[in-house]
This record gives sequence, C-alpha cells and structure tokens, in this order.
Amino acid sequence: MGVSGCGKTTIGKQLALEQGLPFFDADDFHPKANIEKMKNNLTLSDSDRLPWLNTLAEKIYEWERNEGAVLACSALKESYRTILASKQSNILWVYLSGTFELISARLKKRSNHYMKSALLQSQFDTLEVPDYGLHINIENSIDDIIKGINSKLKQMNQSVFGVIGLGVMGKSLSLNIAEKGFDISVYNRPEYGEEQVVSNFLKDNHAVKNISGFTDLQPFVASLATPRKILIMIKAGKAIDMVIDQLIPFLSKGDIIVDGGNSHYMDTAKRVDYLAGKELHFVGCGISGGEEGARKGPSMMPGGSLESYQNIAPILETISAKDKTGKPCCTYIGSDGAGHFVKMVHNGIEYAEMQLLAEVYAIMKISMDNEKMAQILSDWKTTDLSSYLLEITIDILQKKEGNQYVLDTILDAAGNKGTGSWSSKAAFDLGSVNTMMSSAVFARYLSAFKQKRESLSFKIKNDSEAIEEPNIKALENAYRFARVINHYQGFELIRLASTEYNWKLNLYEIARIWTNGCIIRSDFMEESVDTLKAYENYFEDQTILKSLMSSESSITECISYSLKYRIPFDTFWAAYNYWISITTENLSANLIQAQRDYFGAHTYQRKDDSSLNFYHTNWLEK
Amino acid sequence: MGVSGCGKTTIGKQLALEQGLPFFDADDFHPKANIEKMKNNLTLSDSDRLPWLNTLAEKIYEWERNEGAVLACSALKESYRTILASKQSNILWVYLSGTFELISARLKKRSNHYMKSALLQSQFDTLEVPDYGLHINIENSIDDIIKGINSKLKQMNQSVFGVIGLGVMGKSLSLNIAEKGFDISVYNRPEYGEEQVVSNFLKDNHAVKNISGFTDLQPFVASLATPRKILIMIKAGKAIDMVIDQLIPFLSKGDIIVDGGNSHYMDTAKRVDYLAGKELHFVGCGISGGEEGARKGPSMMPGGSLESYQNIAPILETISAKDKTGKPCCTYIGSDGAGHFVKMVHNGIEYAEMQLLAEVYAIMKISMDNEKMAQILSDWKTTDLSSYLLEITIDILQKKEGNQYVLDTILDAAGNKGTGSWSSKAAFDLGSVNTMMSSAVFARYLSAFKQKRESLSFKIKNDSEAIEEPNIKALENAYRFARVINHYQGFELIRLASTEYNWKLNLYEIARIWTNGCIIRSDFMEESVDTLKAYENYFEDQTILKSLMSSESSITECISYSLKYRIPFDTFWAAYNYWISITTENLSANLIQAQRDYFGAHTYQRKDDSSLNFYHTNWLEK
Repeated sequence: MGVSGCGKTTIGKQLALEQGLPFFDADDFHPKANIEKMKNNLTLSDSDRLPWLNTLAEKIYEWERNEGAVLACSALKESYRTILASKQSNILWVYLSGTFELISARLKKRSNHYMKSALLQSQFDTLEVPDYGLHINIENSIDDIIKGINSKLKQMNQSVFGVIGLGVMGKSLSLNIAEKGFDISVYNRPEYGEEQVVSNFLKDNHAVKNISGFTDLQPFVASLATPRKILIMIKAGKAIDMVIDQLIPFLSKGDIIVDGGNSHYMDTAKRVDYLAGKELHFVGCGISGGEEGARKGPSMMPGGSLESYQNIAPILETISAKDKTGKPCCTYIGSDGAGHFVKMVHNGIEYAEMQLLAEVYAIMKISMDNEKMAQILSDWKTTDLSSYLLEITIDILQKKEGNQYVLDTILDAAGNKGTGSWSSKAAFDLGSVNTMMSSAVFARYLSAFKQKRESLSFKIKNDSEAIEEPNIKALENAYRFARVINHYQGFELIRLASTEYNWKLNLYEIARIWTNGCIIRSDFMEESVDTLKAYENYFEDQTILKSLMSSESSITECISYSLKYRIPFDTFWAAYNYWISITTENLSANLIQAQRDYFGAHTYQRKDDSSLNFYHTNWLEK
Repeated sequence: MGVSGCGKTTIGKQLALEQGLPFFDADDFHPKANIEKMKNNLTLSDSDRLPWLNTLAEKIYEWERNEGAVLACSALKESYRTILASKQSNILWVYLSGTFELISARLKKRSNHYMKSALLQSQFDTLEVPDYGLHINIENSIDDIIKGINSKLKQMNQSVFGVIGLGVMGKSLSLNIAEKGFDISVYNRPEYGEEQVVSNFLKDNHAVKNISGFTDLQPFVASLATPRKILIMIKAGKAIDMVIDQLIPFLSKGDIIVDGGNSHYMDTAKRVDYLAGKELHFVGCGISGGEEGARKGPSMMPGGSLESYQNIAPILETISAKDKTGKPCCTYIGSDGAGHFVKMVHNGIEYAEMQLLAEVYAIMKISMDNEKMAQILSDWKTTDLSSYLLEITIDILQKKEGNQYVLDTILDAAGNKGTGSWSSKAAFDLGSVNTMMSSAVFARYLSAFKQKRESLSFKIKNDSEAIEEPNIKALENAYRFARVINHYQGFELIRLASTEYNWKLNLYEIARIWTNGCIIRSDFMEESVDTLKAYENYFEDQTILKSLMSSESSITECISYSLKYRIPFDTFWAAYNYWISITTENLSANLIQAQRDYFGAHTYQRKDDSSLNFYHTNWLEK
C-alpha cells in the first residue's frame, strides 16, 4: 500500500515471484464506472469505492484459502483497510513510504499510467498512515525492500509454540495458549482411531484463528519459529522417548522440548542430559489443575536449564494461573528433574489431603446424612480450612441424580495413577518420613480389595449399639492439625531432595505457585507462603507449634472415636504418630540398634559419646 | 604304590614328565643300614622302616609346598601309608595291581634290581590293598594307565566351589562349605588395604585343609571343576556387574555364578538375562542368618534357572540350616529375581517384627525396669510367641557392662541397609498393602532425626502424672495379633509378585525354609507352614480369624494406652488399621473416586452395576 508511484507494482511483482504467489493489482478489480471516472480525471467518492473494496475483501479471503497472494493497493484510509480485512485478518500490510518530491519525480517518468501526477498531492492529503504493518522507506534498494518483507513474512507464518498430543490436557492447554494471542501449531499422530483428532479440534474451535494443525511431524516442526518451543502432552513413559527421537532430526541447536506430563523425575533428568548432548534443551514441566486448570490457568512447575526456562517463560507465565497478587503460578523450579519432582510431591500431598477428607467423611457418615455433613464442611469452609478440595467435597456430598445422592452409588474402590506412590517411594529413597501420603496410597490400594473386604466383613459380628455423633469441634481441630503435618511432611520431602540433588529449591515460591490453579490450593497454602518465607519449616513458627500442641486432645479424641466404632483412620493416625514421634526425645530405636548389633554386628552409637563412635557388644558373653 | 615289579618307576617317571613334576623313588631315601640288609636279602623289620617312612613324610610335605611330586613307594601296609600321610594329607594314592604270575614274569627280565624275585611272594602276603585312591590294573597299556592318573589328578586339584569376597559373610560361608568336606577356592581382590585378606584367612583357618586361596581371578577360575560354581559375596550394586564382567572371559558354557548378597530382584533378573545370552547361569540367592547363620547354617533362597539350582543344590542344601524334620532350609524359589525378591520380603517382615518389639519395649519402659521387661518377655517365650528376635531381645534387656545396662546407653537413631525400604517400594509397585513394614522403615528414618526430636521435645510440656502400668495380657494379645497381620501382609506381597512375574511361588515352602537359620524364625513360622499348606492365606484359617477377632479389644486397649502416654505406636496401629479396613465392607473410598471424577474426569464405577462400567458425572450441573 501507499500513494501512486510509491512502487507497489514493482515491489509486489518481485515479491510474488520470490514467494511463488500470484500478484494482483487492486485497480484491475474496479467496476467499469470507476475506471471511466478516473480516465476523466474525476475523483472517486468513497461510495464509488465501496463495491470495489468489498470485491477485494472477498478475493483476499479466496486467495488466503489458496496459500495467499500479493496485492498492490493504495488503501490510503483506515476505513478502506478495515473493509479489505473484513473477511481475512491474516494480512501483512506493507506500507511503502516516500517523500512527495521523490514520488513526484518518479511519476513524471511514467507514461502508461492513467493517473496524472497532479493528483498526487490529493493522495498525500488523504493518506492515513497505518500504525501497524511493515513500514518501508522507498529510498532503499528494491532488493533490500524485498528482503525486509520476506523476513517479516517468514516470522508471520511461524508459530511461537508447538503442542504435541491433543488429549484432554493438550487440547485445553492449546486453547489456553492460542486465546492468549500466541500463534501455535498443534500436532497429533495420525494413528488408527486418531486420524481426525487434529481436524476435529480445529473444526470445534474454528473461532480461534491462530492455531495451525498438523499430522506430520516435519512440517509441524518447520512451522515453528526458532528457537522452537515444543510442549509434549502425551502419556508418560517410553512414548516420550519415542517422540523425542522422532523430533530430533528436525530440530536445531537451542530448540526446547517441554514435557508437560507426569514423567518420573529421574527419567526427566536422563532426558535433560541426553538432549544437552545434542545441544537441545529439555524442560520437565509439572502441570496441575486438571482439564479446567489447563484451560483457564494451571499451576506450572518447570525444571531444566534456567536458559530454556527464560525462553518459554513469556508463554508459560501468561497461560498459568495467577496468585492473589497477580503473579503467575509458574516459576523456574530448578535443574534437571526438579520440576517433575515438585509436581510429584504436589500429588503426594494431594493424595493425603483427599484421604483426610475421606476419613472425615468416614467418621461422620455413620451418624449423619449427606446434607448434615455438607453443612458441617460448609461451616469449615468459612474458616482457615477453606480449600479447593473442601469445596468440591461439599458439592459432591450434595449432588443428586433424581432422588439419589450420587456419592452413595459410587463403588468404594479407588484408582490411582502412579504419582502418589512415586512420592512415597522417593521418600524411602531419600530417608524422608512421609507417612501420610504413603498411608493415603495404601488406603486406595486396600479399597481395591473389595471382594476380600466383603467376604471378611460378613465374618465379623456387628454390634448394633446406638451410635453417638462425633465431637465436630474436635474433628475440625484434628483436620487442621493433620493438614499442617501433611504439608510439613511434603515440604520436608522437597527439602531433602533439594539437598540430595543440589537443586536449591525455594520452598515459599513453590507454596506460592500452589496457591492457585492446582488441586491443593487452599487458604492454608496462602498462609504457607509467608510461613515458609519467614521460617525454615512450619514447626519453627510458634503459632503453628502452639496450635499443634493444643490440638493433641482433639486428635486423640477422634482416634478414640474411630477405635470405638471400628473406622479406618490411618492418615489422621499417621499425622498424630508423626507429631508424637518427632517431639519425643528418646524413642525405642535403641532396641532396634541393639538387635542389629546382636545378629548382624552392625554396631551402634552411644548417647554418652558425642563424637558418635561406633561400638559393638558381644551380647552373649556373660 | 604296589609290590616290586608292578611298574611304579616306569609309570611314575612317565607321569612326572607329563605333569612337569620331579620324580622320586622311595628306596633312594633308605638309610644305609636298610640298604645293606636288602642287599643281603634280609627282610626289613617295621622298626627298620620307621626312620625311612618319617623321612619320606617330611619330604612329601616339602614337595607339596613346591607344587608336588611323583613318588614311587611300595607302601604295602596301611600303617606305612598313615605315616607317609602324617604331614600332608593331599596325596593321590595310585595302587598298581597285577597278578603274582604277571609280576613274577616281569621281574625275571630285570637285572639291575637288588631284590630277588623270591621275595615277591612275601610282598604279596604283606600287601594291604587300600580302600581309597586310584586302583589301576597293570595289564592296561602304559599310555592308558597314565591317562587314568592324569584325569584323576585333574579332578583332585580342582575345587567344587568358589567364593569371591571374604567379608564377614563370605568368610563364614567359605568355612561352612569347607568344613562340610567340599574343596573350595576363595578369592579376594588384592586392592589397597585388602592385600592380606586371603592369606590372613588361610592362616587363621590353617586347620581347614580344603581351601585354596587366590588374589588373581584367572587361576581362581581355573582351579574350579566345571561346570564352575562361583558364589559372589560382595556389596550389592555396580560392583556385582564389574565382577561378572571380569569373570566372563575365563568362564565356559554352563558355568554358574551365584550372587549371595542383597541385590535388588530387578537387577538380578537383568543379570540372569545378560548371562543367559552368554550361555552362563546366574543365580540370585538370598541368604539370611547373619554371620552366625552363614557359619553354622543359613536360610537360603536361590532363584534363577531350575537347571542351575540342581547343579548347586548338593552344596547349598548341605551348608544350609535344617528344619525340624531335618530338611534343608534351602529350596528352589523360582526364576530370575524370585530368590532375591523373597529375601527382600523376609527383611521387610523382619523390619516390622523388630519394630513391634521396639514398640512393646516403648509401652513397657515408661513404667518398668529392664529386668521386669525381660521377665515378661521370657514368659511370652514359653508360649507360641517364641521367636529368635524375642530371645535376643530378652538377652539385650539383661545385658550389662559393669553396673549399666548396655541398652540404656545406645543412641536411639536406627540405621538401615535398603532391603526394608525396597520391600515397601515393591509393595507400591505391585499394589500391595504393606503398611507394617513401611511403618517400621519410617520409624527408623524418623529416629535418625535425633536433633530435631530433641529440640522439639523441649517445647512440649511434660505432664508428670503418675504412670499406670500397661495391661500386659492385652499387650501380649496385641503382639500376637500384630505378628499375624505382619506375616499376612508379607506373604500377600509375595503372592502378588508371584502372579505379576509368573513365578509360581510356593508360600508354605518359603515359610518352611524360614523356620530355621534366618532372623525371623519362630514358632509362628513353624505353624505357618501348615497354615499356608492348608489355606490360601492366614485369614482362611478359622482359628486364626477368631483369634484376630477376639484380640481387637486388646489391641485397642494398647493403642489407647499409647495415646494416653504419648508413645509412638505406629506398627501396632498399622496392624490394627489394616485389620479394620480389610474387614470393612464399605470404605470411604467412594469419596476419593468422586473427587477424582470431579477435578480430573477420571470416572468411577457404581455399586449397583455389577458389570463395572465407568461413569462420569458433571458435578457442577444443577
């Protein structure tokens, strides 16, 4: 675009040649009446131009559907340009700018143009310079001008982010990214049963314009601006390695692969190493929040090199949830597998939080109906106990289908997807005491032995004594108590891993990105940010310590109630027993050490030897 | 040996030539007086022979220390041979036998011999044919005779078993094997600090003759009869793979490597595969019993190919402990990693058994002194609760150094060596509920945070109320109850693994080999053999089931006591909670399923749909 004589046709033809696109001159689309007017040196009115501009808009839409075109059109006013772009917004506007003197001189050399150079001044008067598009000074050489346009076109056609795998999470994240204004490319393998996944996704979301779909990996990768940023959203395991190896031949130095699934942190560390050897980056990024979180803003836990994080941060921090101060619930976690480790612990904490609510429910349900339980939990929600999991539990208790509560129909055999048990296994590896998340995983496993439970339960005599209601205030205190211990155990696991793997993890930043977008977001997590900023751990905070101490009678009362009515209550017990143990100066582990020394000569240390030498006793010697 | 003219010199010289050994004729060692007598055709008396035989015995000892020799000596009487072997027993006696007629005919052809053939009959009269050694008929050709002797010598010089690694367990097992009459070779790497391990071991055990020591792997392997049987007793981990790779070049098809350490069962399975690819056998053999068990008879759990087990069984079953019927506490466990898996679970059960005793001790010690506790446990020992671990605990409680009980001086920070946590991790992998062994591992971990415990304990107010003694009968019942659950959980882990890995494990045979030699041997283990032979698991046995049911009040009483006095009691609780859970028809896991469906669309199954279809609810829809 630009005034007559600015070089639209010359530049446009050359550009079209180089891009392999057809070239069109807008003037060729004028209706006859307009051409006559111009021949007679009559100025066209805007109403003269309207049918012409509408025709061009239709053509532009048509061209775009056939890989595009180069159009030379003066398009002097913003209103003209608005009409031109009304059918297809993906236009690169190239404004060729020059001074009146320069253009006037050039026009004088032309003979085959029906516009007299006398009209030039009126064009300059009409011109509304766009505040977008590419502005090029025509004093540059044609080659330089073409070069500038080519380079811009190249950027324009490339996506800034790629997503592989259009499962529930992949779709939701893709839409989240696209709606935030990032051009993205998505890929799904065209395997049997999945051939239509990409086209259906594009069809279902046709209103979102900045998504390009692919079922072939090479053009998918080629569609990405470098350094390429590719998020893999497929099932963790061998499939990740397969996709990585398929991608490698198409990637170039500095490209970044992000694994957004629940991969094991040790696998992630191996992949970081493997790709570093090929001058590529690998980021293991834990993502929490389920389908809704992925769509509206998840909590994100990326780990890998800091350099790679800085490259993807603008996108990740835009699409993630925001904390109450507006900061993204996404932060650089640490090197190699740190992101996936932290996500794994998130899930371990989540397992225990869910199980605590299941045990609260178990305690209440023998003497109360669902509405009463929902009312009690709603009361708790008005306190510092408020959390996402508490909220959904209240919804769940009240949900009916017809006359029936849905919850009452659900089979009590819980499933699991690995990350809960991974946390517990990591605890065993690291010498960390994570009894609550372990207990929650075992409770799920145990629930799955439904048939055995049924057959054994029939053999147990059932006392049909009148059931007293539990002390709800004690239960509330016990729940508060157990949640503190659960968070303590979870963050201690992170701390021990941080030391072991030299990750230098920032616990309060981790708490902060868990305040929104993820499953364990809660008022207590909000408080935890400040607590973990001020103290090394929860127990250093005197207020928390006093609250734990004063809750002992409440939790023992609840445990006694569970004993009385034969109610499994293991995760609460685990919280209590941990607290009692960690606050006991002298445990009975001296007997364990004596036994080990007795049968295995493992030696022991002595209380009265602060230099911690090792001793062995010949236990059988009289 | 043999009468004059049987061919001792001819055969002996030829043999010495082929073996590269010096040849000696016994007659050359006669004192002059004897030679004179013989020249004069006088018969030597036994007292004439005595100095001569003693000289030979000294020489034989000397030769043996220089790689041996071939000696031709008539050695007609057993009493002569006893003197000859008095300094060095490692003699291959070769008796050359022939008829009087044959030998008489041969003697007549000789001219350079000072014994007249008339003396031959007296030699035949004197000859006491040995009932040992190699008997060869001199009618065979010289070549065949030499061949026969060579072949016997080859066998004789080879050990039937090799042991690599002379740590505590390696030494004890080597002595056990050698003392059972097996010739063994032992090897220890000559690394810095370990140069003298082999020579010191041989020196310390010079009375045990059938051990050959090596610090070089090639001659060690060459010293073993094929198929070679090599037991590796070194620290589990990478070192095992290193030793395997060092051994491979010297091994031949069908040789068997046995790993007697606590290797992880998955590593063992990989090694079985790796060596099978080289036509070698690998046996992962769990060994329990500590130093004493290894020396006197351990419980052994070998896994790998049945063929390889059959090859090593004669040795393993001889050196292992014996059950009460005299059968070896060693049996073929199953393929690949099965042996190490079972040993790992043994240790998991052991962890929980030890922790139960530590908790019994914790409950009692706040109100009783060590002697009283020892008395109570001694009473238990007279019941079905008797076990090795109970026995040693009684010893430990009573052990004093000077006026002080050793137990009271021991730091309450327990160590661990991995197999306990491996069991718990395997449980997580297999969906098995092993809360007791997990709890025991976590209790050890927690004990290690001694400083944190100390600092927190000071912040907790200590009620100095009078302490009531616990109900000892209830504690005994609770202990009995918890041990049943512990064994149940342990054997269930084995059962689930057996199904998962298709090992076809025999649970009652496993119980049987755990009745002696190992740390968890007990009266209950004895009973378990019959129980697991008759029933799929303990709960199918109505007597056990009734006992568990009737112990509920006892264990809840003990838990309440632990609550009252703030005593960590987690492994007992784990037993109780497991029992309550597995006998509860409806758990609260339906809430977990609802939560998972709410935030992750994980779906759930319904109680009223026996075809177990999956359902999803839109929980927010009103």
